[in-house]
Amino acid sequence: MSVVTEKQYVDPKITLVGAGPGDPDLISVKGVKALRTANVILYDALVDERLLDYAPQESIKVYVGNPSGDENFSQDVVNQLMVDYALNFGHVVRLKGGDLFVFGRGYEELNYAASYSIETAIVPGISSAISVPGLQGIPVTHKGSSESVWILSGTDSKGNLSLELHDAARSKATVVVLLGFDRLPDIVAIYQEIGKGGLPAAVIQNGSMGNEKIAIGLVNTIVEVADEKGIDNTGPVLLVFGSVLELHHDFQRIKQFFETAL
Amino acid sequence: MSVVTEKQYVDPKITLVGAGPGDPDLISVKGVKALRTANVILYDALVDERLLDYAPQESIKVYVGNPSGDENFSQDVVNQLMVDYALNFGHVVRLKGGDLFVFGRGYEELNYAASYSIETAIVPGISSAISVPGLQGIPVTHKGSSESVWILSGTDSKGNLSLELHDAARSKATVVVLLGFDRLPDIVAIYQEIGKGGLPAAVIQNGSMGNEKIAIGLVNTIVEVADEKGIDNTGPVLLVFGSVLELHHDFQRIKQFFETAL
Repeated sequence: MSVVTEKQYVDPKITLVGAGPGDPDLISVKGVKALRTANVILYDALVDERLLDYAPQESIKVYVGNPSGDENFSQDVVNQLMVDYALNFGHVVRLKGGDLFVFGRGYEELNYAASYSIETAIVPGISSAISVPGLQGIPVTHKGSSESVWILSGTDSKGNLSLELHDAARSKATVVVLLGFDRLPDIVAIYQEIGKGGLPAAVIQNGSMGNEKIAIGLVNTIVEVADEKGIDNTGPVLLVFGSVLELHHDFQRIKQFFETAL
Repeated sequence: MSVVTEKQYVDPKITLVGAGPGDPDLISVKGVKALRTANVILYDALVDERLLDYAPQESIKVYVGNPSGDENFSQDVVNQLMVDYALNFGHVVRLKGGDLFVFGRGYEELNYAASYSIETAIVPGISSAISVPGLQGIPVTHKGSSESVWILSGTDSKGNLSLELHDAARSKATVVVLLGFDRLPDIVAIYQEIGKGGLPAAVIQNGSMGNEKIAIGLVNTIVEVADEKGIDNTGPVLLVFGSVLELHHDFQRIKQFFETAL
């Protein structure tokens, strides 16, 4: 009965906040302001829990797993929790790892909230696809090396290798692949088939975080280098293909090795 | 003489900070922390001056124009100022509009600082290419509409229309074009030549800011719609092409109009 009474006094609102690539200091000031006025925070597996300290002590913190991989917290369950908490407690901050909109399902959540006529707000996050290479000193575009960047998922919505990877491999763009580490040998094969085995390639795990790992090599060697560096699928991993990688300090060593070997 | 004496006491450091798409609250917490310890801030035309309030009152604030358009502040001049200030005053924050690395010349500045063996740090910003559509509720990727996003500049390093736009127009990716509003009719022609005149298109000026303007239409109508909405080249403008635009609330009206008209 008390829930019904409370409903009359709350002002439901849902704010989607992108927490960025991992480092908790990469959240925006606007994201922090949203957390400070939150009654409820729904946060997922990629979010650093230190961010919860910005929220009022009495706020409700709800862990909702990894929506793309955790059966206990499907997107439908998260959507419903988000709306239920907003209607019962007021301001819900949906705190998501990443930027919200590149494979982030931010739109699905906004759309669901809107179907209940709940006020929504959007606070974008820093994209890992651009910032994680950048933090390594690798610009995704660079005069003379690359004049565009193409960001893809390794797999399509059915879990198959994305067919667009073939077009991306042929293009002159710097190619950044999210959610693709499991399929790295298949992606390498796509590049090799079109004679691009000598293109620089990189794998970065846990970008921007203390446990970051990077492997830099060529398409032909990247599977081996990633293995040597101990890169695995715990935490976010992204792949980068393109000549901008030559700008990374590790690459000079690789270049010298091949120049000596040939 | 006093400058020489001071040099012995400063600890030169350069931190590149991306201020994000425009809204000053979209800077990261890490960016604010850098500003708070700045001795000098070099900021460009796209930066909201309210961000300078985070810096110590006694810090030196230097406006360096628009590096890509202002002859008084070429990239070489900015690079040299950055290094000179660091050597003479200590911690320089180079505060740039945008994310640093998508047509941001962040690498050039880092590289120049490194050539003087000055310690550098990187604080990425929120990319306008992803966040500006996102703030409008347009996800650059969306299950069933688009499984990738390709970000390009309208012109190449020589000022010519980017040839990659032809490949981008043919691809299934959501295409985001920065620095391309002046060439909108030419880009429209590229899409029309391959029979994509009916693809949804949008132009967004001053994204995330109070004076934001948006035009949504089809490739065939977007030049006219942008004109009707009073969009011009003051402030940053970006172009979006792709079926994800159908998710924007304005698009439903356009769809109904064409369904009625046909």
